[in-house]
Amino acid sequence: MTMDKNTTPQSLVIVGSIGLDDVQTPEGEVRDALGGAATYSAIAASFFTPVGIVGVIGDDFPQTHLDYLDSRRIDLAGVERISGGKTFHWAGYYDFDLNVAHTLDTQLNVFADFKPVLPDSYKKASYVFLANIDPVLQLEVLNQVEKPKLTVCDTMNFWITGKRDALVEVLSRVDIAFMNDAEARQLTGCMSIVKAARAIQKIGPQTLIIKKGEHGALLFHNDEHFSAPSYPLESIADPTGAGDSFAGGFIGYVASVDDISPKTLRRAVIQGSVMASFNVEDFSMNRLRRLTCDEIAKRYSEFREMAHFDALEDASL
Amino acid sequence: MTMDKNTTPQSLVIVGSIGLDDVQTPEGEVRDALGGAATYSAIAASFFTPVGIVGVIGDDFPQTHLDYLDSRRIDLAGVERISGGKTFHWAGYYDFDLNVAHTLDTQLNVFADFKPVLPDSYKKASYVFLANIDPVLQLEVLNQVEKPKLTVCDTMNFWITGKRDALVEVLSRVDIAFMNDAEARQLTGCMSIVKAARAIQKIGPQTLIIKKGEHGALLFHNDEHFSAPSYPLESIADPTGAGDSFAGGFIGYVASVDDISPKTLRRAVIQGSVMASFNVEDFSMNRLRRLTCDEIAKRYSEFREMAHFDALEDASL
Repeated sequence: MTMDKNTTPQSLVIVGSIGLDDVQTPEGEVRDALGGAATYSAIAASFFTPVGIVGVIGDDFPQTHLDYLDSRRIDLAGVERISGGKTFHWAGYYDFDLNVAHTLDTQLNVFADFKPVLPDSYKKASYVFLANIDPVLQLEVLNQVEKPKLTVCDTMNFWITGKRDALVEVLSRVDIAFMNDAEARQLTGCMSIVKAARAIQKIGPQTLIIKKGEHGALLFHNDEHFSAPSYPLESIADPTGAGDSFAGGFIGYVASVDDISPKTLRRAVIQGSVMASFNVEDFSMNRLRRLTCDEIAKRYSEFREMAHFDALEDASL
Repeated sequence: MTMDKNTTPQSLVIVGSIGLDDVQTPEGEVRDALGGAATYSAIAASFFTPVGIVGVIGDDFPQTHLDYLDSRRIDLAGVERISGGKTFHWAGYYDFDLNVAHTLDTQLNVFADFKPVLPDSYKKASYVFLANIDPVLQLEVLNQVEKPKLTVCDTMNFWITGKRDALVEVLSRVDIAFMNDAEARQLTGCMSIVKAARAIQKIGPQTLIIKKGEHGALLFHNDEHFSAPSYPLESIADPTGAGDSFAGGFIGYVASVDDISPKTLRRAVIQGSVMASFNVEDFSMNRLRRLTCDEIAKRYSEFREMAHFDALEDASL
């Protein structure tokens, strides 16, 4: 059964995991909290534009979560609910080094047999984000969409080692790839992030976004290089979903302005950084639930203020 | 004996080590190459303004190095040559992770009994940079200068553990402190760099510059926060002196424009980043030896281009 209730074409489609998470950090813990890469990125994107989400859930997935997604203009036509199945479940914790997630348990459940099937209204999407899932499934999505303006993928270390060939094929077919710095190094064998980025561009995507956690993000776009700062948070409650909300803010902004010029991509990297910086302030989606568009605009301005410096006016050299 | 030949007051004085280094990296090696924190920072600063340097050398220090320093308008009145002594010597190597220097051997030699004595022409310096040396010696320098406009210190992990009280006293007396991110964490026990910076500001310096190597640098100035990108070098020949040339470019620029406004401090962080990015392109001071002011101005512009992003023009939220 799919929850189809909308047949107008979706401009932005996001495919990936929808899950329930148990997370423990030095700041506290949550159980069976709303999680999943597609969920985080769709909610972040929904602040900029409507989103269609493709994923799978079990009987146990609370209706309140579906109501929340629906309230955020996220279309659920692509969400398959498996009767008698259990939702994807991740349990993990973070120590004081919040850059490292320690997995305690991963139960794929209904995700184990997931085959993404795009509703017809999604196949003409202009913007497609393949959140972090098995690259074989990412390829199946690419095979179903018809001439999107922009395809974007995320991935993780698990697929770099376990499904390398499929991942390389995904990379050869998308326009933009997200990766963190360790993953870019792992994929290419290059210690230098600049060399790694060039090597990934040779595989396919001319635009690469390297997430560096507390050190911000880098955008490699053809020969251009853009360095985005990170927001100086004094404390982080829960890093879960930071990369997903980053990518969601990015693609949501791009889709909202319907433009893929370098200027827009730079602004989009900052919008992604803004969304990630809010997301980590509380557990699960709790901060995004109470986030306002005014807060987003204000933090975008703070990023500008933080990164600005003047030209050299005089010839003091 | 001191090499006094200039009695005009120095605007910028730099105190620290002058040495000879053996360095090995994946890109090659050098032996008895010109090194030392004061040397690197003075040469970087000399691209912006004349510098007076205070340090100690032995009989073995080659005249060609002194001639080079002299040719870069670096005043040597404060350099003491110990008859029969040997110059400070450091031997180390870097593996593929160029962020970590491995020390093979440190011979303090004439540096072991060094007591910095400022020539009279240095005591009224407006700008004083205490490069990375024993904080006890840094305090002796602070006791000799008369009302400088700006005092700046650098340090390292060795003094944080070995001379903590003296270092805290230095910090309580300077205007600006340089530290790398690991050192700021080590000194304060805070994992969060923002919390660590606030803790260091409470000790004294209202301006703190956190060096993050390949991740750029952060400037904390009162309540302001500035994030400077790093330059995307494809390869690094030798990281030795990166932090020193960074600090030297910073203080040299500030002294050259004789202004300590927030705008100038931000520009100065970028000038420091520019100098460090050139310095690591070759061994020892080899890149700085052939560097031109045009190259510096061009790279400063590249940093601007790399960090720039537009405001949000419309109300797309």
